[in-house]
Amino acid sequence: MSRPIAIALVHFPVLDKEGAVVTSALTNIDVHDLARSARTYGCSDYFIVHPVPMQRELTTRIVAHWTDGSSAKRIPTRKDALSIVRPVETLDDAVQALGGDVEMWVAAARSLPGKPTLPFDDARASLERDGKPVLLVFGTGWGLAPEVMDRADALLPPIRGVGEWNHLSVRAACAIALDRLRST
Amino acid sequence: MSRPIAIALVHFPVLDKEGAVVTSALTNIDVHDLARSARTYGCSDYFIVHPVPMQRELTTRIVAHWTDGSSAKRIPTRKDALSIVRPVETLDDAVQALGGDVEMWVAAARSLPGKPTLPFDDARASLERDGKPVLLVFGTGWGLAPEVMDRADALLPPIRGVGEWNHLSVRAACAIALDRLRST
Repeated sequence: MSRPIAIALVHFPVLDKEGAVVTSALTNIDVHDLARSARTYGCSDYFIVHPVPMQRELTTRIVAHWTDGSSAKRIPTRKDALSIVRPVETLDDAVQALGGDVEMWVAAARSLPGKPTLPFDDARASLERDGKPVLLVFGTGWGLAPEVMDRADALLPPIRGVGEWNHLSVRAACAIALDRLRST
Repeated sequence: MSRPIAIALVHFPVLDKEGAVVTSALTNIDVHDLARSARTYGCSDYFIVHPVPMQRELTTRIVAHWTDGSSAKRIPTRKDALSIVRPVETLDDAVQALGGDVEMWVAAARSLPGKPTLPFDDARASLERDGKPVLLVFGTGWGLAPEVMDRADALLPPIRGVGEWNHLSVRAACAIALDRLRST
């Protein structure tokens, strides 16, 4: 047995370069890339969290173009991927969509003082056992606001390569995190 | 000791959806994302292989914007990443830039009949020993033409998640491959 896992990409509340809490704009390639990674690693859903109705509507239109529009026939594999995308207003809406009782894990490029991290090996083992669904949360902009990190049940460790420099794109970070958690 | 590793992103010869050999267009986000992943995992160079002079010139202009232009000051970490980008005409030019004697590994989403694959664990161990520089090659479009795969010293196994579906973006595939090969 294994636990269901879903991912969420948060556009509010996130930080800007100066550390202020802002709302970031939807990025088309994030819709595609994270959906393709999520589908590859068997995620049930990919929630795109955006408080602005027009940005959720834009998400819906992008998804429809690839799931019902001309591109659905042209590239069927993209339809498979984008069919798990769910635009939602808040992270709580994502939690509710998963039944209301989930474990929330945050994947961030930095740690939060005082908040323990869950090593990837332990997280991976935990996913292989029975348990609540896991919602794995990623941020846009300069990263998730501390309030999101603080409410998480666990923080995954920042992804490091061969040194301290770890300014990965969220597309790369999501792919790596899912591979560490769920590769077979 | 460990061996130097560089990556290359090939725009020709690659396949289109019908399997014909074509030249693909440069994608701006590929310049950024693969550079950020390569920098994170300590790659010496990121070669962008394109036969069209104007596309190499465009690559140079994108890189200059982030290494010398206004954005270099605004986001210095991006400068760190993009400073390892090298536009080249052919894969042979990339090999020459690395000294002419490299081991070429291809990361492809499919295998080539009759061509053995090098498991990631073995590849990782090999990188930790002394040896020739490794050039890790990725394709755009619908993947590298067979002639590129055929000349490789080794093919890495296709990246699989939890099932057969593995239509990852090249941005995700590169991130995962480097993490499997070089994470610490």
